[in-house]
Amino acid sequence: MTDGNTEYGRKAFKRAPSHFTDRITAAGEDGWPVEAGRYRLVVSRACPWASRALVSRRLLGLEAALPLAVADPIQDDRSWRFTLDPEGRDPVLGIRFLSEAYHAREPEYTGGVSVPAVVDVPSGRLVTNDYQRITLDLATEWTALHRPGAPDLYPEPLREEIDAVMDGVYRDVNNGVYRAGFATRQGEYETAYADVFRRLDLLSERLRDRRYLVGDTLTEADIRLFTTLVRFDAVYHNHFKCNRSKLAEDPVLWAYVRDLYQTPGFGDTVDFDHIKRHYYLVHTGINPTGILPAGPDLSGWTTPHHREQLGGRPFGDGTPPGPPPAEERIPSDHHP
Amino acid sequence: MTDGNTEYGRKAFKRAPSHFTDRITAAGEDGWPVEAGRYRLVVSRACPWASRALVSRRLLGLEAALPLAVADPIQDDRSWRFTLDPEGRDPVLGIRFLSEAYHAREPEYTGGVSVPAVVDVPSGRLVTNDYQRITLDLATEWTALHRPGAPDLYPEPLREEIDAVMDGVYRDVNNGVYRAGFATRQGEYETAYADVFRRLDLLSERLRDRRYLVGDTLTEADIRLFTTLVRFDAVYHNHFKCNRSKLAEDPVLWAYVRDLYQTPGFGDTVDFDHIKRHYYLVHTGINPTGILPAGPDLSGWTTPHHREQLGGRPFGDGTPPGPPPAEERIPSDHHP
Repeated sequence: MTDGNTEYGRKAFKRAPSHFTDRITAAGEDGWPVEAGRYRLVVSRACPWASRALVSRRLLGLEAALPLAVADPIQDDRSWRFTLDPEGRDPVLGIRFLSEAYHAREPEYTGGVSVPAVVDVPSGRLVTNDYQRITLDLATEWTALHRPGAPDLYPEPLREEIDAVMDGVYRDVNNGVYRAGFATRQGEYETAYADVFRRLDLLSERLRDRRYLVGDTLTEADIRLFTTLVRFDAVYHNHFKCNRSKLAEDPVLWAYVRDLYQTPGFGDTVDFDHIKRHYYLVHTGINPTGILPAGPDLSGWTTPHHREQLGGRPFGDGTPPGPPPAEERIPSDHHP
Repeated sequence: MTDGNTEYGRKAFKRAPSHFTDRITAAGEDGWPVEAGRYRLVVSRACPWASRALVSRRLLGLEAALPLAVADPIQDDRSWRFTLDPEGRDPVLGIRFLSEAYHAREPEYTGGVSVPAVVDVPSGRLVTNDYQRITLDLATEWTALHRPGAPDLYPEPLREEIDAVMDGVYRDVNNGVYRAGFATRQGEYETAYADVFRRLDLLSERLRDRRYLVGDTLTEADIRLFTTLVRFDAVYHNHFKCNRSKLAEDPVLWAYVRDLYQTPGFGDTVDFDHIKRHYYLVHTGINPTGILPAGPDLSGWTTPHHREQLGGRPFGDGTPPGPPPAEERIPSDHHP
């Protein structure tokens, strides 16, 4: 979710609400029923908001039912583009820029073009870019297409607690790092920095003796925290000046995020090359030299975390997903 | 040593040699004999090259013999200035800009204005800005004015080894971080980054079972490594993109630098406020937003280092210096 939604300038950074909020549901109330192969999920592997959907889709086994388009981590002035694909076009949608799907939906649209985006393949029209809703619907509306053994990522009895945790995580962590990084006034930055670390300290305390954020299984709350934490030392600590300490300096959070990273469906979606190149090369207002940092050393990500000693049943009564489809594997030089 | 000497642009960063290389010696061969109260040491507490002289002067007890002028950490287009002093003038030299002493020495001079600088008070003329020589002369030529119990920072029998160590430290660490930070091409940056961490790894190995770099006492070699290491996590890791790992992630170097920091004469010269403001606010080509990072957390600097278990005699047959003169104490909110 960048471009339009992450503009910064001489005013406080404010994340724009999603403009296209239709839902794809089992009953199809909005005209978009769940249907295998009908929609295309467009992401950037750089983007934490899009990466939520990458993780959910893997955990739920929706890879075949909801095929994937991966945008180039470097946007140009027309935003996300399919320059990683042959001839620079998404092979299914046939478009060069994600904005084409936005304009197919609303010809006069002039707002930001963000990922994640779900596009209706037959019409080429954008259905939704509602990053707060997409994963919840994958968990609760796409159930007929889930793989056997898929976990319940948003269990009914825990929703209130999950929502409360996610609310603080969103405000202070997911979006907090952006408020810090895109601040143009010192006071605005310092407020965001304080929010980030106050919340991380609370989360570290919460996770000291429990393996997952809510209940004893993986939930949507863990996915949303993960996608920010996995980027923390690689980009937010330096590029967004969230530098009180690295995640690797907090034994609890560092073990927690490694545990998730090493869980099938999490780490196998993470492309550190895309992550680093996106942030450091796109935000020329923060990194005008365009030098891409060579660090951090990523070798720690695959080291033992010992969190299984806390118990927990990652997939509840379900099972871990198998490996990702061959065409979705992260190149070996893009991860530790 | 900034301005002129740390220009960066569309060519590889290259540190300029010092232009004024007269020496102040016991015999006064260059016309500048060692004499108590005659000279004024001009520094910025932000600058690692100038900070060598701050540490030497404290260890050797030269505070009264060689009084101190501290420049504002923020230069303007006329370089180092005395805006921290009443009416913006150094009270002894009566000048507003260090460049005035440079021009008193050489009216046609158009090169960079750097610290450390030693100025002849009676004439107001710059004597030397030779950052590689100044501290060696404090150690070996100013001996008549050393305090009782001053250590020998450049002992004759160890000079060859000290010089060899300092040579690698200079190239890969002291100057290496600048080559990384001021690089404008990716390849140039990556070479410098590799140099920095290869050398730090070698130094970490060397210091694993010995308390100091050469011999079993503090020497000039430790001073020169210290002034870069003390800045590493606060500025070089982020601002200069030396981000393979923080110093705090290397148990040996982190304990070594804390040991030095906690040794009288080292940490009591360090002003983290000046350090951070200088780098982050002066280099607008690297940090155009002018946001000053709130981190890192500095509280670790005063924690036990346990390096005394390695033995070593910090001051050899001498003694530690007393506290700094009252007017030179670092404000309590500028250090941990």
